[in-house]
Amino acid sequence: MTALQFDLLATDPDSHARRGTLTLNHGVVQTPIFMPVGTYGTVKGVMPRSLHDMGAQIILGNTFHLWMRPGLDVMQSFGGLHAFEQWNRPILTDSGGFQVWSLGAMRKISEEGVRFASPVNGDKLFLTPEVSMQIQTVLNSDIVMQFDECTPYDTNGHITTEAEARNSMELSLRWAERCQAEFARLQNPNALFGIVQGGMFEHLREESLAQLVALDFPGYAIGGVSVGEPKDEMLRIMAHTPHRLPTHKPRYLMGVGTPEDLVQGVADGVDMFDCVMPTRNARNGTIFTRYGDLKVRNARHKSDHQPLDASCTCYACAGTSGVSWEQGGRDGFSRAYLHHLDRCGEMLGPMLTTVHNLHYYLNLMREIREALEAGSYSAFRERFRTERARGI
Amino acid sequence: MTALQFDLLATDPDSHARRGTLTLNHGVVQTPIFMPVGTYGTVKGVMPRSLHDMGAQIILGNTFHLWMRPGLDVMQSFGGLHAFEQWNRPILTDSGGFQVWSLGAMRKISEEGVRFASPVNGDKLFLTPEVSMQIQTVLNSDIVMQFDECTPYDTNGHITTEAEARNSMELSLRWAERCQAEFARLQNPNALFGIVQGGMFEHLREESLAQLVALDFPGYAIGGVSVGEPKDEMLRIMAHTPHRLPTHKPRYLMGVGTPEDLVQGVADGVDMFDCVMPTRNARNGTIFTRYGDLKVRNARHKSDHQPLDASCTCYACAGTSGVSWEQGGRDGFSRAYLHHLDRCGEMLGPMLTTVHNLHYYLNLMREIREALEAGSYSAFRERFRTERARGI
Repeated sequence: MTALQFDLLATDPDSHARRGTLTLNHGVVQTPIFMPVGTYGTVKGVMPRSLHDMGAQIILGNTFHLWMRPGLDVMQSFGGLHAFEQWNRPILTDSGGFQVWSLGAMRKISEEGVRFASPVNGDKLFLTPEVSMQIQTVLNSDIVMQFDECTPYDTNGHITTEAEARNSMELSLRWAERCQAEFARLQNPNALFGIVQGGMFEHLREESLAQLVALDFPGYAIGGVSVGEPKDEMLRIMAHTPHRLPTHKPRYLMGVGTPEDLVQGVADGVDMFDCVMPTRNARNGTIFTRYGDLKVRNARHKSDHQPLDASCTCYACAGTSGVSWEQGGRDGFSRAYLHHLDRCGEMLGPMLTTVHNLHYYLNLMREIREALEAGSYSAFRERFRTERARGI
Repeated sequence: MTALQFDLLATDPDSHARRGTLTLNHGVVQTPIFMPVGTYGTVKGVMPRSLHDMGAQIILGNTFHLWMRPGLDVMQSFGGLHAFEQWNRPILTDSGGFQVWSLGAMRKISEEGVRFASPVNGDKLFLTPEVSMQIQTVLNSDIVMQFDECTPYDTNGHITTEAEARNSMELSLRWAERCQAEFARLQNPNALFGIVQGGMFEHLREESLAQLVALDFPGYAIGGVSVGEPKDEMLRIMAHTPHRLPTHKPRYLMGVGTPEDLVQGVADGVDMFDCVMPTRNARNGTIFTRYGDLKVRNARHKSDHQPLDASCTCYACAGTSGVSWEQGGRDGFSRAYLHHLDRCGEMLGPMLTTVHNLHYYLNLMREIREALEAGSYSAFRERFRTERARGI
């Protein structure tokens, strides 16, 4: 087995965008790709077969959550996350670093690792680079993320200083080496990614990147974005870091973002994205469409027979026929119906909007890949902007 | 169009059980049948395509709820409930009588109808036999239920007397005539069912039945059961009334019941059942299986790799392969996984358990029909009892 193979198929002459394939132990992923988030071993509100139907190629699992529930003994008995959640395509797991960081005052970070009390049962726990590798080895995810300290943008209003960002970045580098050593010791057959940190400081990002490249990981992530910073700061780092990473290795921008972020991120050289936005927004009735965003809860949809997105072929918009409203299909669910389900608090509402939002994200990436193959990514970006601005 | 045609295919020599087909405006229903309940225009937690896949032939809608939300203007614009909820097979709607009765002190019943305040927005409303027929005509359900007064078993501990049950039953009869007149005036193209009342008094049931038969409805329901009475009272009425109804018309026992009730009810001559039990219990983690009932929440399932029901071919138990665990299939979701989803409050839990419970009910009815066709219903009942008693 090859743990990871990355092949570049095309590059965009006008930007840093690339089209590739990423071969992992559980299958091939076409990049650029969006990865739905399946925190607790389930992409919230959607069946694995629906994920298959809508063309999801790789999903996320959260190490910290799965360590808490169901726990490692259960995971071990299933031989990993794939059999437990019945998903036989690639899985990427995070390291748990972001989640322990999110515990705030509940955790204590040292050189060794992070001590914290389990939010589930209060047990005193200690998460270290080694423990993160051990857990992810049990999960048997195709892509394992190094344990890092996610440098905050601010802490209770105090914006992280350069010195703090440097200390944090250097800690993550030392942890990267410990992760590599433990990953090798465990003979984990999958692929370990390093994570570039450095906060909002370009030169720290470059230092982090250079040292991680020296460690020769099979793939790299950009962490510490989408942590509460202003949008222009995120865009600045996204424009700076990805294309500086090794050309022939996959690049993963963690926790980003809106459809606009994805289109820009690809231009900046990113191959892989994940974000809870499509699933979380779906549950709140906020819908992504080709022609802009839509709020199902809005009273103006009360009697509207149109589907969420007239161009969409997902089950919510086009039913089992898969023929979009624009193409004459009338098997989809109307905005009026989805508005009604939302008003009545019916489960079918978030079930259908989740299918739609994920389908929208996955289809957007499919269109991006096609544009890159056709050498027309600039034209695609222009059309994308025009269509999204049209309004719905 | 024939609004309703009922054909008897076989009868059981040892009981009142019958096997038939019921042809309605939106398709043919094989009886005996269980009808999933779709109160607000959705069977809670399940997509219409899943209902199709699991062989649902006819579903319910609730007139009262749909009148409140989304309201008749929206329903009218869709030409009825089928297009609104994207279900193109038969639909049965109740009359709203049970729901206004459930409002308790909030409603006032008179000869004319029931006055009440909308539980949604406080509007003063008046539901009469005529209004019920008008609403159900807008919904365009294949089977329309007469507006009746659901005779309570008890009211705040006072058990309904014979005189009270007679008054209530006679009111429902007068309403039955008004429903018929209004249904005809509206030129509703579907089928109107009369509802036998009479509380727990057999001779009142017989009076109600005789007068309804004189009105010559195309089908009949038995109402006023499953309203809080002791189980043996329900069984007594179920044994008494159904087989006294006209042989060549369909018989519908409203709001019943457990798998055991269904198997007994068929023996008592019932053709159609509805109940919220499979869907509601699924959301509470109570699972019906061939080998008895199971509580997903129970800690003993924490590490259990078996599916809910080793004999079941539903998506939850057998995945997309449809091969049961007993037949060697290993694509289903484990009890450990469903236990985990329940513990984490994940939507996928009730989604999968709802698919399973409905599949169990629909498959039970399929097995009942096959046994009736094979002339082996007594043997089936014996096997059913043995298997259910085995334990899980």
